[in-house]
Amino acid sequence: MSEIAPDRRPRIAISVGECSGVGPELALKCIACAEVIDHCLPLLYGPVGVIEQVARVVGLSCPTVGDNSAGCSIIDVGEIDATKVRPGVFDAATGAASFEAVTRAIDAALAGDVDAIVTGPIQKEAWHLAGIDYPGHTELLAERTAAQDCCMMLTSESISCVLATVHLALADVPRELSLDKVFRAIRLGADAITARLGRPARVSVCGLNPHAGENGLFSYGEEAEIIEPAVRAARDLGIDVTGPLSPDTAFMPSMRESTDVYVCMYHDQGLIPLKALSFDDAVNVTLGLPIVRTSVDHGTAMDLAWQGKASHQSMLAAIRMAIDLC
Amino acid sequence: MSEIAPDRRPRIAISVGECSGVGPELALKCIACAEVIDHCLPLLYGPVGVIEQVARVVGLSCPTVGDNSAGCSIIDVGEIDATKVRPGVFDAATGAASFEAVTRAIDAALAGDVDAIVTGPIQKEAWHLAGIDYPGHTELLAERTAAQDCCMMLTSESISCVLATVHLALADVPRELSLDKVFRAIRLGADAITARLGRPARVSVCGLNPHAGENGLFSYGEEAEIIEPAVRAARDLGIDVTGPLSPDTAFMPSMRESTDVYVCMYHDQGLIPLKALSFDDAVNVTLGLPIVRTSVDHGTAMDLAWQGKASHQSMLAAIRMAIDLC
Repeated sequence: MSEIAPDRRPRIAISVGECSGVGPELALKCIACAEVIDHCLPLLYGPVGVIEQVARVVGLSCPTVGDNSAGCSIIDVGEIDATKVRPGVFDAATGAASFEAVTRAIDAALAGDVDAIVTGPIQKEAWHLAGIDYPGHTELLAERTAAQDCCMMLTSESISCVLATVHLALADVPRELSLDKVFRAIRLGADAITARLGRPARVSVCGLNPHAGENGLFSYGEEAEIIEPAVRAARDLGIDVTGPLSPDTAFMPSMRESTDVYVCMYHDQGLIPLKALSFDDAVNVTLGLPIVRTSVDHGTAMDLAWQGKASHQSMLAAIRMAIDLC
Repeated sequence: MSEIAPDRRPRIAISVGECSGVGPELALKCIACAEVIDHCLPLLYGPVGVIEQVARVVGLSCPTVGDNSAGCSIIDVGEIDATKVRPGVFDAATGAASFEAVTRAIDAALAGDVDAIVTGPIQKEAWHLAGIDYPGHTELLAERTAAQDCCMMLTSESISCVLATVHLALADVPRELSLDKVFRAIRLGADAITARLGRPARVSVCGLNPHAGENGLFSYGEEAEIIEPAVRAARDLGIDVTGPLSPDTAFMPSMRESTDVYVCMYHDQGLIPLKALSFDDAVNVTLGLPIVRTSVDHGTAMDLAWQGKASHQSMLAAIRMAIDLC
């Protein structure tokens, strides 16, 4: 990438996520990279007291609230007593702070004050302790931006997966799956990857059940009644789509060569192969939103918090992709 | 491997599987390999008429029924009109024939007439058409050998996975999972891999739900009530076991380095990463049986049947492992 003139750089809101986890240090490491500062204006959304404390502990420099002269700054969000936050220990207060940072970042994007948001990892249980019922970022984003049609895509150099369902107990997946959700995932995945590649994306749709139900033997009809009609409807729109495929063979090397994007029926069907095959470069992109949002593909790594050891490669990849999408 | 004297070679029953699929040609290709003939006496179990027909069509030499002078022979099993069998077209007759071949091979192993069995791929729907209700080989083997405790392991150079449940619709997995099944998979997997490595196996147990249930947020308690107690019980036996792990991160490169065998809660949780990471060398081994049984890790590949194109690497790997286990 060539350097962008300072006044043309996209403004990227980076919510630091759960502040007792690795999010703050990842954001601080990213804004210390010339690659980032040269190509965007990063704004860290989070509780300034905690971010400063993490910078001290880890030995990183910390930007100033509201002062962009260093090429980045902090938007102080989250009423929290920074002296009480300990690495690896989340509670209702840290959960409320990370929720507020994300919602402020979303609102800034909707208002046009930032061009994209990159979200650090949250602790879903901390949201729960704070009385916040969203199962994750994706569901919050959909509601807050009034997106009719959105879904989660994980993408890396080697593989991209769009999820028809996301944060559900496995037992809830079969009853939550619908023709609409599968069709939406096919359409949004095809659109996103077609735009990226500049040619029609080749979409592979997985079955829900082992062997894609073995023609109904291990299925309650999900392949025949939900997935096949969704594939036909997408094909009728001119999308280059195949499936439902037997999930276990769908990700074999020969199948990956003929696939640009997978549509997966549930979280682990897509994330297990993606993470097995990717090395630190996977990014989470929410498709179908009126704003650009990317995210790290990992969690809060509480056992590594505030030690400076956590890899910021996924957050770097998320920032790069947000810049590309702006 | 050094050559074994002819009278010391283990006798390996190879059931050719669904005869309208690729099974017969894979078995014929394997017995044409010096590596196989030098190290075992292969006996092909299947309908001789069809096997001869496949050999002619594909251009492979065919052994003779009951004559071991060429270092291999055919055990004619399955009453079927060979002139009516077409490549890629299964029916009740081909299903009945593949079922009879497997059961005869199992019985021969139980009687001590062969030292191990290697099974070619069956078409489960053909069994169904023939009125045979077993969901797969594993369940048939368990019943016919009166094995109290058995389970399926898929293993390759890069990764080994033991399955707590096998051929079930995804909707049935949560209710079929039990402490006993998870504990059995841990114990059998640890025993098998410990024996192979000559040191205690490091066992990683996956959760059922995304993020291993995120401490109950996306779970009906399967992690806390089933998987954790099974892990504790295995640890109490001295097994080096960890889990339940978040399934999506469990198969990342760094986790694979510290894992000798994975215990997976359902078919695709284990088979998706195994097949994504393995190249033709994965073998299916049934653990806990009184006989040695290995199998290919793939299906009947009906679209490739009788064309000589299908790779016999998985069947070769299955024969190699059967010889090693004898």
